[in-house]
Amino acid sequence: MTDEPRTGVPQAREQPSSRLGVVLPVDRILAVEVHDVRFPTSRELDGSDAMNLDPDYSAAYVVLRTTSGPEGHGFIFTIGRGNEVAAAAISSLAPYLVGRPVAEITGDLGGFYRELTSDSQLRWLGPEKGVMHMAIGAVVNAAWDLAAKVAEKPLWLLLSELSPEKIVGLVDWRYLSDALTPEEAVVILRAAEPGRPERTARLRAEGYPAYTTTPGWLGYDDDKLALLAKEAVAAGYSQIKLKVGADLDDDLRRLAIARQAVGPEVRIAVDANQRWDVPAAIEWVRRLAEFDVWWIEEPTSPDDILGHAAIRRAVAPIGVATGEHAQNRIVFKQLLQASAIDFVQLDATRVGGVNENVAILLLAAKFSVPVCPHAGGVGLCELVQHLSMFDFVAVSGSWQDRVIEYVDHLHEHFVDPVTIRGGRYLAPERAGFSADLKPEALERFRYPAGPAWTGVRDA
Amino acid sequence: MTDEPRTGVPQAREQPSSRLGVVLPVDRILAVEVHDVRFPTSRELDGSDAMNLDPDYSAAYVVLRTTSGPEGHGFIFTIGRGNEVAAAAISSLAPYLVGRPVAEITGDLGGFYRELTSDSQLRWLGPEKGVMHMAIGAVVNAAWDLAAKVAEKPLWLLLSELSPEKIVGLVDWRYLSDALTPEEAVVILRAAEPGRPERTARLRAEGYPAYTTTPGWLGYDDDKLALLAKEAVAAGYSQIKLKVGADLDDDLRRLAIARQAVGPEVRIAVDANQRWDVPAAIEWVRRLAEFDVWWIEEPTSPDDILGHAAIRRAVAPIGVATGEHAQNRIVFKQLLQASAIDFVQLDATRVGGVNENVAILLLAAKFSVPVCPHAGGVGLCELVQHLSMFDFVAVSGSWQDRVIEYVDHLHEHFVDPVTIRGGRYLAPERAGFSADLKPEALERFRYPAGPAWTGVRDA
Repeated sequence: MTDEPRTGVPQAREQPSSRLGVVLPVDRILAVEVHDVRFPTSRELDGSDAMNLDPDYSAAYVVLRTTSGPEGHGFIFTIGRGNEVAAAAISSLAPYLVGRPVAEITGDLGGFYRELTSDSQLRWLGPEKGVMHMAIGAVVNAAWDLAAKVAEKPLWLLLSELSPEKIVGLVDWRYLSDALTPEEAVVILRAAEPGRPERTARLRAEGYPAYTTTPGWLGYDDDKLALLAKEAVAAGYSQIKLKVGADLDDDLRRLAIARQAVGPEVRIAVDANQRWDVPAAIEWVRRLAEFDVWWIEEPTSPDDILGHAAIRRAVAPIGVATGEHAQNRIVFKQLLQASAIDFVQLDATRVGGVNENVAILLLAAKFSVPVCPHAGGVGLCELVQHLSMFDFVAVSGSWQDRVIEYVDHLHEHFVDPVTIRGGRYLAPERAGFSADLKPEALERFRYPAGPAWTGVRDA
Repeated sequence: MTDEPRTGVPQAREQPSSRLGVVLPVDRILAVEVHDVRFPTSRELDGSDAMNLDPDYSAAYVVLRTTSGPEGHGFIFTIGRGNEVAAAAISSLAPYLVGRPVAEITGDLGGFYRELTSDSQLRWLGPEKGVMHMAIGAVVNAAWDLAAKVAEKPLWLLLSELSPEKIVGLVDWRYLSDALTPEEAVVILRAAEPGRPERTARLRAEGYPAYTTTPGWLGYDDDKLALLAKEAVAAGYSQIKLKVGADLDDDLRRLAIARQAVGPEVRIAVDANQRWDVPAAIEWVRRLAEFDVWWIEEPTSPDDILGHAAIRRAVAPIGVATGEHAQNRIVFKQLLQASAIDFVQLDATRVGGVNENVAILLLAAKFSVPVCPHAGGVGLCELVQHLSMFDFVAVSGSWQDRVIEYVDHLHEHFVDPVTIRGGRYLAPERAGFSADLKPEALERFRYPAGPAWTGVRDA
């Protein structure tokens, strides 16, 4: 099932108008293609950390083909095994798409998203979590890519030009009203409205601040760490991140090396990738404090809201960051209600797509907590830049203490890769969500039959 | 991919000893068969509630075939669409099983469970939540079924005869130590040890208390509700449950009918199936209080720990119950830490199988909160009875305020169905986990090609 693109069963939801024998050319979703794409990154230990020892960065990738218009691209990022399960989950959503007029979907993306999360049988598999929810996110993101291409705008700009009411209409408000109501969200968005043109211009001129995780993978030796840390500062980054949590002595040594390499002004964040219980996290992080750590990321289970709150109280002034594995807006709501985090690390392909991330941006703005998206992987940098730029222009209106993660690999496989200059993401100007993988990458890294996996020479 | 049982790729993990040309007869896992089984229950509106309008009760069903010993059976319960995704997730685990000696798995079920949840690539799909985690639960439960058959004991008895240290060794203790340590768990289990023989005898003589949801589905009319409620009391149940949350006036009318039918002594619980936001839950439940409601079940999102805590504070003395959609032990830990629930409704196929449910039973015992398992569906009654009986004999040592849900449908398709007498589950005596579907049910309800779905007459 993983070799060939799969195509959903066409289900005509509406017939073209043909009363007078004239068939209007309505653009429709023709097919839902699902690809299992995997990059053999475990061979180089790129992406290695305390919990993820041997990732093969992968994408369960979906292409919405249309009868006459542009294609919509989206994906779930995974780290290898199970990518076929993610692909199967995307395929299960094809009946919601095939045969449907494109304008019906792109004209009501809030309704489309809520329709998918409300399927009366599929929601049992979550609800709103895990593989099935990520599949909804991939399809929703593909629909946004399509909508932005139809509108001939980059996604960040398309979102940033919507009225406050339209933005609020994108959200599924279920389970949020004890923390944020639609009315409060409109107030937040209205407050940011007058500054939109000025911030749009500034974003295009300066780019959005980034930080880099490239130096800090656990699989790299000390010399490589020092070299890459120095290169990061030279390249203009004001923050780097190191993986920690496997061995305390190693962490202390590596932090000393990194701090010496970058000097006292550059921020150093550390990331434990869920390695600890709550008491262990507190003890370990306190030991790292002497190196002036900016945040501790994923100190414990991403499900442990109360645990993050306890850790934050104990390790201040070191900040607590999490979110790349937070399953939905309800978990983010509680992390904010419980004062459990200092940084919201939303992820582009973990939750229910752009729509749920709009909810998360609004919640973060309500609680005045900066959003610093998780990225890296396959295409996550390409996607999250749009969300942070929308946040800057139209939601929080600020990039104070906000940085987008950047990791320098696999970008070459994208049609519209991110551009980093002086430690900042330049605003993409091409229409869409920057999600398109090049056709040759889809073919070469197809799992398990593509040449990158079979060993066939693929000059 | 949903028509035929799938068989994993055999991976010999260890060769039989053959140094002297003598091959020892080691029983091994020969194949992992995965079946997509669906019952067309939506035709009768059995199982209808405020969120699940049209369930087709289904099972992503796994059979571990062995070279010479008994088979192990397990499954994920779903309500229809997406069952094929659950089946794909189970299939992804086949490499952990095929070719492996049975004794290696059944001899260290704690290690086997932790091995599956720790797969360095698959855990990205959760971690420990959603479809991938439920698939681990199905495989772990199948391994327990196999172990109990090999031991020639019903699962509840097999578990109840383990030493406290062996029971503690079944648990994945990651992320629990701020609420419960292995040492504390041993103390709890030791306290229950002297009473094991007496409670085992009592359980076999009296059975374990049950309650019934049969009268209360939203799809039933008032007369059917009144009739079924009276029948429940006559059958010996001291608690019934009604679905609520679609319409307040309907709920008030139906509760009045039910209260009149059962009299003042029988407990009436209500179940909103995640219908409300926190403020709406509080307002609605307070309106139902006049009918002496025992618990409100799933008032809001199963992910909303803080929300359940707020609701519980506001609607006391009505109890709050949840758990059938709680994804893992970490969520249960927090529900207990936050004093958010009065009843722990563990589910047999939502979490990581028997092992994670042992952790949940231990957490509940630590916090002195009674466990009242979710059941119904396909085979959930058959599974959870073993967990509650183990809890009674060897963990909490009590059935005070503890009841197992009972719904009277689909039991006829099981080889060893539950037996209810006088409103109590009789202790199963047959070896295993009572999970085996009859071969003719696997064939008849195979989706989409079985005769129950194709309309082919299947006298």
